[in-house]
Amino acid sequence: MDSLEKMIIEQGEVREGNILKVDSFLNHQLNPEFLYHMGEEFYGLFKDKEITKILTIEVSGIAVALMAALIFKVPVVFAKKTESLNLDKDIYASKVFSYTKNKVYNIMISKRYLGSNDKILIIDDFLAEGNAIRGLIDVTQKSGAEIMGIGIAIEKGFQQGGSSLRAEGYNLKSLVIVDELKPGSIKFRAQ
Amino acid sequence: MDSLEKMIIEQGEVREGNILKVDSFLNHQLNPEFLYHMGEEFYGLFKDKEITKILTIEVSGIAVALMAALIFKVPVVFAKKTESLNLDKDIYASKVFSYTKNKVYNIMISKRYLGSNDKILIIDDFLAEGNAIRGLIDVTQKSGAEIMGIGIAIEKGFQQGGSSLRAEGYNLKSLVIVDELKPGSIKFRAQ
Repeated sequence: MDSLEKMIIEQGEVREGNILKVDSFLNHQLNPEFLYHMGEEFYGLFKDKEITKILTIEVSGIAVALMAALIFKVPVVFAKKTESLNLDKDIYASKVFSYTKNKVYNIMISKRYLGSNDKILIIDDFLAEGNAIRGLIDVTQKSGAEIMGIGIAIEKGFQQGGSSLRAEGYNLKSLVIVDELKPGSIKFRAQ
Repeated sequence: MDSLEKMIIEQGEVREGNILKVDSFLNHQLNPEFLYHMGEEFYGLFKDKEITKILTIEVSGIAVALMAALIFKVPVVFAKKTESLNLDKDIYASKVFSYTKNKVYNIMISKRYLGSNDKILIIDDFLAEGNAIRGLIDVTQKSGAEIMGIGIAIEKGFQQGGSSLRAEGYNLKSLVIVDELKPGSIKFRAQ
């Protein structure tokens, strides 16, 4: 997605530890029209997959998932993060290790909102090692729903999440793949 | 907003402690088309206020604020919650007491995304005692931006937040006001 590459080059900030901050339109301030265009891109990539529900994870997946859902005309369910181990019977849960925060947290989804008839598109803002996506895959599998695709806004191609998931056969598409992330030099993979 | 009252009656769940759960369309699963209609309602209420930016707070304010922003054609900024006291110079911060969680947390906004030229519409999903809204008002005032209005999806009219804010002169509008919240009996204020 050329316009997303342009936005990242113009507004993204590279920080120590391969961090790409896109706070001006995606992670703190939200640009609704641009997020809508990102939703249209996801629709173009997955429109033939008979998606019944979009699954994402709080916080920063919500905006892009919601705009995609507006175009797909399906609900979003966002997994909730919690450090609590007080997990009740009415939820599907999984553990996720966060490299950024160096801790394990639980993610959870109410059983009411994910079921074996659902055809799921997983959407998230970033993919690096893929831990959050693994957690979403895990809760989806526990629900019996089918994973039709995984849509990522910004994939860090120099980390292993994307290549591992593709090798396992997941239909993973990223709007942009960053192959190099240095201050003043952000390189994207040709797609 | 009649359709929101209907949605709450059909899908809302009343829990101990005056909790109204609306997880099926607003707080866990998101109904994008319905959220878009809520955004249209907010636009109708505040369209003459020359809004330049919508301010909300993570997590559950984001979806409704984003849909409103799509119609207003302005950015959203969502305040981040943190327990950390490590607040740097580049942010506006405020303390908020959460009755639900019985703890104080900090909210913060980057100075980059809120400034003295902004005309702000504050949007949130719920209003009860008004603590989160007070925090958003505080950071807005610290930035020098002007508060043009406050839009709430569901106000709990039996708690004091709404009446206090109106008494202080804030242009506060709620899509629905719940005056009584008992299992099997949810009463709305005529507006």
